[in-house]
Amino acid sequence: MAKIWIQPGQDALAERYRAVRALTQALAAPLSDADATVQSMPDASPAKWHLAHVSWFFETFVLRDHVEGYRPFDDRFAYLFNSYYEAEGPRHARPMRGMLTRPSLNDVRAYRAHVDAALLAAMPHLPEAACTLVTLGLQHEQQHQELLLTDLQHLFSLNPIAPALFDAPRAMPAPVPGPLHWIEGREGLVEIGDDGKTGFAFDCEGPRHKVFLRPHALAHRPITNGEWIGFIEDGGYHDPALWLSDGWAWVQAEGIEAPLYWQRGEQGWIRFGLDGRQPVNPAAPACHINLYEADAYASWAGARLPTEAEWESAALNIAPTSGEQLDGAACPRPRAAEDGTSLTQMFGDVWEWTGSAYRPYPGFRTAPGAVGEYNGKFMSGQFVLKGGSCATPRGHVRASYRNFFHPHQRWQFTGLRLAKDL
Amino acid sequence: MAKIWIQPGQDALAERYRAVRALTQALAAPLSDADATVQSMPDASPAKWHLAHVSWFFETFVLRDHVEGYRPFDDRFAYLFNSYYEAEGPRHARPMRGMLTRPSLNDVRAYRAHVDAALLAAMPHLPEAACTLVTLGLQHEQQHQELLLTDLQHLFSLNPIAPALFDAPRAMPAPVPGPLHWIEGREGLVEIGDDGKTGFAFDCEGPRHKVFLRPHALAHRPITNGEWIGFIEDGGYHDPALWLSDGWAWVQAEGIEAPLYWQRGEQGWIRFGLDGRQPVNPAAPACHINLYEADAYASWAGARLPTEAEWESAALNIAPTSGEQLDGAACPRPRAAEDGTSLTQMFGDVWEWTGSAYRPYPGFRTAPGAVGEYNGKFMSGQFVLKGGSCATPRGHVRASYRNFFHPHQRWQFTGLRLAKDL
Amino acid sequence: MAKIWIQPGQDALAERYRAVRALTQALAAPLSDADATVQSMPDASPAKWHLAHVSWFFETFVLRDHVEGYRPFDDRFAYLFNSYYEAEGPRHARPMRGMLTRPSLNDVRAYRAHVDAALLAAMPHLPEAACTLVTLGLQHEQQHQELLLTDLQHLFSLNPIAPALFDAPRAMPAPVPGPLHWIEGREGLVEIGDDGKTGFAFDCEGPRHKVFLRPHALAHRPITNGEWIGFIEDGGYHDPALWLSDGWAWVQAEGIEAPLYWQRGEQGWIRFGLDGRQPVNPAAPACHINLYEADAYASWAGARLPTEAEWESAALNIAPTSGEQLDGAACPRPRAAEDGTSLTQMFGDVWEWTGSAYRPYPGFRTAPGAVGEYNGKFMSGQFVLKGGSCATPRGHVRASYRNFFHPHQRWQFTGLRLAKDL
Amino acid sequence: MAKIWIQPGQDALAERYRAVRALTQALAAPLSDADATVQSMPDASPAKWHLAHVSWFFETFVLRDHVEGYRPFDDRFAYLFNSYYEAEGPRHARPMRGMLTRPSLNDVRAYRAHVDAALLAAMPHLPEAACTLVTLGLQHEQQHQELLLTDLQHLFSLNPIAPALFDAPRAMPAPVPGPLHWIEGREGLVEIGDDGKTGFAFDCEGPRHKVFLRPHALAHRPITNGEWIGFIEDGGYHDPALWLSDGWAWVQAEGIEAPLYWQRGEQGWIRFGLDGRQPVNPAAPACHINLYEADAYASWAGARLPTEAEWESAALNIAPTSGEQLDGAACPRPRAAEDGTSLTQMFGDVWEWTGSAYRPYPGFRTAPGAVGEYNGKFMSGQFVLKGGSCATPRGHVRASYRNFFHPHQRWQFTGLRLAKDL
Repeated sequence: MAKIWIQPGQDALAERYRAVRALTQALAAPLSDADATVQSMPDASPAKWHLAHVSWFFETFVLRDHVEGYRPFDDRFAYLFNSYYEAEGPRHARPMRGMLTRPSLNDVRAYRAHVDAALLAAMPHLPEAACTLVTLGLQHEQQHQELLLTDLQHLFSLNPIAPALFDAPRAMPAPVPGPLHWIEGREGLVEIGDDGKTGFAFDCEGPRHKVFLRPHALAHRPITNGEWIGFIEDGGYHDPALWLSDGWAWVQAEGIEAPLYWQRGEQGWIRFGLDGRQPVNPAAPACHINLYEADAYASWAGARLPTEAEWESAALNIAPTSGEQLDGAACPRPRAAEDGTSLTQMFGDVWEWTGSAYRPYPGFRTAPGAVGEYNGKFMSGQFVLKGGSCATPRGHVRASYRNFFHPHQRWQFTGLRLAKDL
Repeated sequence: MAKIWIQPGQDALAERYRAVRALTQALAAPLSDADATVQSMPDASPAKWHLAHVSWFFETFVLRDHVEGYRPFDDRFAYLFNSYYEAEGPRHARPMRGMLTRPSLNDVRAYRAHVDAALLAAMPHLPEAACTLVTLGLQHEQQHQELLLTDLQHLFSLNPIAPALFDAPRAMPAPVPGPLHWIEGREGLVEIGDDGKTGFAFDCEGPRHKVFLRPHALAHRPITNGEWIGFIEDGGYHDPALWLSDGWAWVQAEGIEAPLYWQRGEQGWIRFGLDGRQPVNPAAPACHINLYEADAYASWAGARLPTEAEWESAALNIAPTSGEQLDGAACPRPRAAEDGTSLTQMFGDVWEWTGSAYRPYPGFRTAPGAVGEYNGKFMSGQFVLKGGSCATPRGHVRASYRNFFHPHQRWQFTGLRLAKDL
Repeated sequence: MAKIWIQPGQDALAERYRAVRALTQALAAPLSDADATVQSMPDASPAKWHLAHVSWFFETFVLRDHVEGYRPFDDRFAYLFNSYYEAEGPRHARPMRGMLTRPSLNDVRAYRAHVDAALLAAMPHLPEAACTLVTLGLQHEQQHQELLLTDLQHLFSLNPIAPALFDAPRAMPAPVPGPLHWIEGREGLVEIGDDGKTGFAFDCEGPRHKVFLRPHALAHRPITNGEWIGFIEDGGYHDPALWLSDGWAWVQAEGIEAPLYWQRGEQGWIRFGLDGRQPVNPAAPACHINLYEADAYASWAGARLPTEAEWESAALNIAPTSGEQLDGAACPRPRAAEDGTSLTQMFGDVWEWTGSAYRPYPGFRTAPGAVGEYNGKFMSGQFVLKGGSCATPRGHVRASYRNFFHPHQRWQFTGLRLAKDL
Repeated sequence: MAKIWIQPGQDALAERYRAVRALTQALAAPLSDADATVQSMPDASPAKWHLAHVSWFFETFVLRDHVEGYRPFDDRFAYLFNSYYEAEGPRHARPMRGMLTRPSLNDVRAYRAHVDAALLAAMPHLPEAACTLVTLGLQHEQQHQELLLTDLQHLFSLNPIAPALFDAPRAMPAPVPGPLHWIEGREGLVEIGDDGKTGFAFDCEGPRHKVFLRPHALAHRPITNGEWIGFIEDGGYHDPALWLSDGWAWVQAEGIEAPLYWQRGEQGWIRFGLDGRQPVNPAAPACHINLYEADAYASWAGARLPTEAEWESAALNIAPTSGEQLDGAACPRPRAAEDGTSLTQMFGDVWEWTGSAYRPYPGFRTAPGAVGEYNGKFMSGQFVLKGGSCATPRGHVRASYRNFFHPHQRWQFTGLRLAKDL
């Protein structure tokens, strides 16, 4: 399980706790009770459920297990807001999360306040094991902050009146970026993965281990919307030779013609976002594409996706707090790409699909108990994404971070960076 | 299409308009924005959608078509709140009605107020054709009042915390009723169906026509929950010989063991209703059963379902305002059955499944235009139910009224009365 | 259950037995083992299964139950070849009938011979009840003769090489028939249904009972392919106003543009039949349409479907052996329509959809025991068809005969005759 | 694409061609036309289809492309028997392969003879590129030999009479093997993958590349049926903590309790095979388990699955022709496990699931043209299996061989060997 930053003291943890919890509240502030309740698809959860589930995590693994005399806010919530922890007993079926019109959004806010008060009161006395769980809970809540935004975007996209949750960010000047540059990667034996010494990491990020890399290069920036339109106009969605077999079946079955949330307007492509319907910005990174689309684009471009080892070893000297990331309750939106002769936008903007299946690193073992279900049991059928996105809370991501989704999923802020063999 | 009561004057229509619209508002009063937004299954609609759709009906067929200078409240609502009128153009997909977190419940209330103001202002000047449509719109809204209640009950039933929308009605004394009496029906040629002369009726209720009836009898009251428990305990849900083939397939596929909303408690059967979870009342009519269950029960009892002609000819001299029907914003609940030597509970309490498929009466023709889609196009695959229920607004139902649902559906207040050949 | 023709003697029954069984063999003669084994859809059965199932019927209800010392051909066959008789115990799942590559077609032929020998040997000594069951079994086998042909046609239609099972019938001269004539029907009280006195009838054909008919007329002949092409060219498959709601949903979901087995060729419409791909004959009755299509055509033509009572009362004086029916192992094909001033093609050619749901006649009761499952349990969700088709063995059908299929099904030889109110 | 053994001359190729083609014929010899026609599930193909498809491969890529004047046996076969080569144009839908009752099995045998005659006649004059394709075609046919057997086993398993295609192999003495021994693997940098120099290999087996291995050990033999029964009896199929999340969902949805083809008998477990129903042999390797089951077993045993690099580096010095493999037309069956202090049964007996996702090796590129679709497009969602099985034609497999299936699939001869970290 997770390793923890050496705490300079409980005050730092409390401060961090307050900050993370406040951001969640701020993100949910513009929501109506209805906005917060509806589930748009089984993959997504209602905003209210996110708000409650992250609180259940603290309530269960910290307050219930480590704080004597704690009384749960509502005994029924364990059933409602457990996500997938089999060890914690039966729970409400995932595809039915949207049926919970009660408790209300305000009830859930009261639940959050109850947990916050209890946890902050207990924090000075928590044993180290519990502090570790608080830190894990905060990382967990940050993950749900991003999901809350992407799930809301999906929900609102299904409303014909296309509501905007946030104001559109001020239009940024967006010169069309010049061509890709190729940046040579490291070659031979490299070490990747978390070493358990330098701060928090999820269990799946380690152990640190050696990987042998062949000569290769990464593109200096992600593929842009403008380039993606070139792929569309060249018939990319109609040429089976470019696609993985499963990907081509998906394209055919769903009639896919463009990234998620795109539609053709009279004057070009329009995309839906949390700021409503807006013209596609050709300078910004292509977004809301799945692994199949990323792979097909790479085939079309005569390139390939990077492996996670290539990506991580290239990112080691880049500040993980760089790039467009989530700093507050505002509309997440990838910035325009930049020209450059070194790697840009490795962190933030869009999660970058790698060609690596999400599997355990050599020597990985799941932790005992419910928290051991956090990551390990999902290690089949998914691919690794790296680098965070414009919806990732700044400070959350790092080079060793392994995000993962199924190859058909594309409602996250997902894009791609090309790689090639040298 | 519908025939209209001879209006004593516009005032009566306006009064009736105000009363019907006010009841809808009252039924929705206890709802949160979230309660009013979620769709629990494709067969059901969100409460907010019901509230808006019935207003769209008036706005479209009366205000738009008959009131010069009327400006729609919101041009996008025609797309959102058209139910199934192909002639009115494309519309939001039915299974996606629950995605409409916006407009809010308050927006919809404002929409209702806008339509009410415009319609009441226009009413003194409306041509007769438009008054006919107002009357139709009110009957239509009454149908949605019942659906609003049954759809909310279905939604709340899927919430593990089992919310109660209304207080439980005061417990009524419920002596177990004595055995069924059989009341002989009319024999030979009878006339059924609406004659178009005595008040409002939906188009499908006519033309009036002759039917030849064999000697038969109807049970004096509906089957009770107590009797239904006897069916369960005798293995009724496990004996294929009792079931229609489609019904047996449904029982097997869904693992059905009891009526909808029933679960076994430690001290007997519990049912969920708009007053939450309550013990099953053995004296009350069995409810939330489908055609397959009704037919299987009848087979088990050595009887059969009545035809709609038998039912209607027996009901001709019974006041259609009798029985437990909806009088205001309170929990609908079938009353206990009564002993008696004449027909009881023919109206109200529970809709009674007939063995008649919902097909056009001899000479039936659909009206031209969108309103012609009201009934005729649904005349395949459904069965007729008679008599109204505890959730039917009092004054809405009559002997010629033909309600219809598919044989597998059971979320309405549906029960059965036995018939037999003599 | 079935009533039986007064037998002039066992010889007649034996002769009839031999004739029916021989026709089945002849129909299956051109089949390969593979042809006879594959199941093309859950609604259809493999030819081999038909051949065995009808033999199981005799073996079970006659030989096992009435002939002492009879030894079943193979104890495993009861499990394999019971169709839907719950009272006869568990059985092979219907959608898996095509998995039975063993027993082989030759094994099944041997099974047939075994049953034939035993039954013919026992026949002189059979009690009357058993003779009744033999007669029922022969009627049953005739039904399966028609299904065998329609199921093979469906199977072969899914083979891109479009095999022809039979030679194409000699091209018959086919002048385009003139316009429809309308033949007035009987009015007032009529009697329909089997009276149990004049020969074999299935249980569902009775009891004989009175129905009151309004003034109406039937078209003198079925609708032709030429007229159906007019419906297509007028946009009939694209106008929701013509369709039942369920029918329109089916058209949309399946992308329907024409009757089953039709495809557009370079020189007009081509249809697939047991004689392979052939041009559509504009003079022949439209065929392989379902209830939704029949109903939509009638709406388009300003008419309606006949009720079963209208159809039957009109057919009473027409010889049920008239029309194109199955006389031997040759390609079934509806003849060209004829001009005329009286009803033509009422029997044979194509089954005619009625607007009547398949429900029990007044006073109908199912027989006790397994044979009681023959008809009654299918009385929901289906519509009645009348008159037989070119694939119905001549001698099988009669005016009171009630065939039934679901409204979406169209792989039988199904067409329509219009009716209208006067 | 594939690299080819340096041919000592055309004679060797012709001899090998004759041998491979003859084995296919022999395997299909006991089949009836029906056996060869039916498709038991979309994942499987009819035997007849296998026989024809492998011939189509030679006909298309060798005869059509490299032999002037070759006339196809039947122009329609390209449509019928192309499997998934998009570059070769449209083709019969995979789930409909079982509808092809024509051409018959004998027709397909004639097709094979036609191709054989043309190819053997042309062989002396074939250019090297074409010889490469003949070699590829033979490897391809060997893959289909194994699939033909596994698909037939699946088909026959769905027949309640459980036909045996082959006689049961003579019962081999089967002492229960002793406990697992752990054999240390190589550590540090190893090279795996095909080097393109030493004989035929599929494109996906290369390029040869370096992988860094941590200290680890492999079990000396596969897990046996006896050990698997221990897993069952310990509740392995009922403990979610042992399972990948997708695996647990599969167990729950399908109600899985044992390997495929197992059922509980009165005296212990029975399994179905091509020799019919037989008692499970506790000494033989567990078989017909999927990746989820293999992974769950490993978790239960406190171990893990080997990676493909671990497996391959351990197998380098073991003869790939060792173990139980397919030598002729007889029932494939894994032999009993052996005690030992070195690796046993690495080749043959059962394919061994690895924990490695099937993804391209570093530097892998697909070949241009249709043959480039052979492997590369399937590199998502599947896992690698190593070592061949009792149904793999001897001579086909090698250490670098990468077989691949989806994690839920288990109708192949698939088992597992444990690994652990040291």
